[in-house]
Amino acid sequence: RIDGDRLWRTLMDLAKIGATPKGGLCRLALSDLDKEGRDLFVRWCEEAGCTVTVDEVGNIFARRPGRNPDRPAVCMGSHLDTQPTGGRFDGIYGVLAGLEVVRSFNDQGIETDAPIELIVWTNEEGARFSPPMLGSGVAMGVFTLDHVLDIRDNDGIRLGDELARIGYKGSVPVTGHAMGAYFEAHIEQGPVLESENIEIGVVTGAQGQRWYEATVTGRESHAGPTPMRLRRDALAGAAVMMEAVEAIALEVGGDACSTIGRVQVHPDSRNVIPGRIWFTIDLRNPDSDALARMDAMLRERLAAIADKRGLTLELTDFWAFPTTLFAPELVGHVRRSAEQRGLSHRDIVSGAGHDAVYVARKVPTAMIFIPCEGGLSHNEAENIKPEHAASGCAVLADAVLAAAG
Amino acid sequence: RIDGDRLWRTLMDLAKIGATPKGGLCRLALSDLDKEGRDLFVRWCEEAGCTVTVDEVGNIFARRPGRNPDRPAVCMGSHLDTQPTGGRFDGIYGVLAGLEVVRSFNDQGIETDAPIELIVWTNEEGARFSPPMLGSGVAMGVFTLDHVLDIRDNDGIRLGDELARIGYKGSVPVTGHAMGAYFEAHIEQGPVLESENIEIGVVTGAQGQRWYEATVTGRESHAGPTPMRLRRDALAGAAVMMEAVEAIALEVGGDACSTIGRVQVHPDSRNVIPGRIWFTIDLRNPDSDALARMDAMLRERLAAIADKRGLTLELTDFWAFPTTLFAPELVGHVRRSAEQRGLSHRDIVSGAGHDAVYVARKVPTAMIFIPCEGGLSHNEAENIKPEHAASGCAVLADAVLAAAG
Ligand SMILES: NC(=O)NCCC(=O)O
Ligand SMILES: NC(=O)NCCC(=O)O
Repeated sequence: RIDGDRLWRTLMDLAKIGATPKGGLCRLALSDLDKEGRDLFVRWCEEAGCTVTVDEVGNIFARRPGRNPDRPAVCMGSHLDTQPTGGRFDGIYGVLAGLEVVRSFNDQGIETDAPIELIVWTNEEGARFSPPMLGSGVAMGVFTLDHVLDIRDNDGIRLGDELARIGYKGSVPVTGHAMGAYFEAHIEQGPVLESENIEIGVVTGAQGQRWYEATVTGRESHAGPTPMRLRRDALAGAAVMMEAVEAIALEVGGDACSTIGRVQVHPDSRNVIPGRIWFTIDLRNPDSDALARMDAMLRERLAAIADKRGLTLELTDFWAFPTTLFAPELVGHVRRSAEQRGLSHRDIVSGAGHDAVYVARKVPTAMIFIPCEGGLSHNEAENIKPEHAASGCAVLADAVLAAAG
Repeated sequence: RIDGDRLWRTLMDLAKIGATPKGGLCRLALSDLDKEGRDLFVRWCEEAGCTVTVDEVGNIFARRPGRNPDRPAVCMGSHLDTQPTGGRFDGIYGVLAGLEVVRSFNDQGIETDAPIELIVWTNEEGARFSPPMLGSGVAMGVFTLDHVLDIRDNDGIRLGDELARIGYKGSVPVTGHAMGAYFEAHIEQGPVLESENIEIGVVTGAQGQRWYEATVTGRESHAGPTPMRLRRDALAGAAVMMEAVEAIALEVGGDACSTIGRVQVHPDSRNVIPGRIWFTIDLRNPDSDALARMDAMLRERLAAIADKRGLTLELTDFWAFPTTLFAPELVGHVRRSAEQRGLSHRDIVSGAGHDAVYVARKVPTAMIFIPCEGGLSHNEAENIKPEHAASGCAVLADAVLAAAG
């Protein structure tokens, strides 16, 4: 039994920190607001009797002891950072559902055999510091600590410096933390569960992603006296490339997605034909072969457009992870809980990357999805129903109990 | 007779202020570097015996008296501000060619009937503060002083505040300044003179321009779990619009030009489908009917793209001026000088806007073009030949003498 009202109140309390006029959140990783959110979370965990530690990359671990201190902890978690125009639930729901599990175990005097840990991973969004999933990535040996501490935001500020500044550069070694299992509850961030009127998504894995940076170089010249035929307009070329990127996902079809999220124009003056355009590309597909095909299409088509227009293209791989499968045994705990509680459910593949994707490389892992309104996320209007939040939290509690004994 | 070596040395001296590693200039209007350049110019003028005054929008007037103080001055001028990645000659050449005219008249003891004035117009480029040609625009009553003082740069800094800060908020009333004629020497900024191996462009007028701002609004959502068919991707739509803008100039043909110089993406995060794109559009044509046709095509096509994709388009007129004709009598002075000096010449229409375009609304006006390397301008590699600089300056001197008596 979990307390859905308390969970909702806790969500709404945390949603005050970084609230935007449009009802969303802007609480970028390692900002003052992130510190405020983290501090409140730590206080709640300590009030719930947990021991809180912080590792070298700012990941927070709140530990509830088990009967058997030698067993590796059964873990729950997600992230507290948001997109610049993010919602109140992406990441935060998973963390606070975990807190509600701890609180309700306390209320009911439930003891577990394995210790339980609630984890907040640093910089999951990849919005302020990119790529995403940095805290879990370092913990799982995907990135080195030094590399990640050296990543800079758009203003050139180092992640490591911000971590120290907000007081979350901990001393616990970031790798080698003992985890016996990991469960992450999350909003779906897509339309499937809502449109099928289903309460619980039993997440079997996550689709693969490939991220790129493209730099298109032409020749700056005057917007007036330069005849069209003599132009090497980097932006006109980049616009055609952007269309090609969209077309790749449409042609490959199925669940293929392609997105351009950032563009920079140089020199960015109204009457100068742009000499250089920089943009990001995000390709996704749950089918690895199809994702590889999208990668090949991207390289070929963008190069052809550059060639035809006398532009130079530099296309660099920025980040990628392959299609990920979660641990069948833990996925089974999630499915069984939904069944036993009479909640409608279906298997689903995550369209987003989550810390669970990196954790799954070393630790048996599963995720629980709940529906979100209109499938909307990475949007200030992101919303969920309190009863769905409660159902997902109850399933999380069951799954943790099943794993922790 | 003018001193071509002295003109070149003066150009190179001023090109030290704001020099970029790539050999160009970054001396944005009303920046510290603009102040430094203005100060040096004022010193040179005073050394040449001129009286220097500054008007309320920072336009600088250096006056060389004539025999007849009641005659309105015969004026020369251009601008000293540059694009962010600009060249050493755009604008600056016209100002310093004027200075060389004054110096050589002094050397030769030439007295004119009308006074002569050398003018530096504030913020011609429209790069830091937009639109272009603000100083001449206020002087000619195109814009009000208050409006222009209130224009802000990309960092929100007011033009009027910067003017005061660098000490160029003068007290001379900006309108009503008596001008009997105005000559502006300038680099062509296009490829015509060089490709035809011609030394002097006799500028008969300037093509019309229409500038716009477009804001495309879609819906922010997550780059992963949002299926392609449910997206309202403002950037994917804007990319198609950008292609359409290019196509308009290509279809209309002739001298039609279209350029997109600035783009802003919101929220500008790699894994967020952009919810809002802002970009600028610059359409030009020497033929007014064709320019009106381009305007109609733009409105129709962009609206259709927005419609088809479920996006909202806000297209606003930002700035425009119609095709401009210069004063035949003054254009005749320029043509005659080239003929008499045995310089190859041709009539030409300016592809760029110049302060002369606004001055021509109230004062008989003409321009002199000289070739530039590869027709390249608004580029750090912008270059001219010293002998062309000297020839253009000599023609300027002749034309001024012809008008000033
Ligand atoms: N859940 C989430 O927004 N993760 C960020 C990584 C991604 O874009 O998939
Ligand atoms: N000469 C020049 O670069 N003027 C700026 C106005 C324009 O873009 O035509």
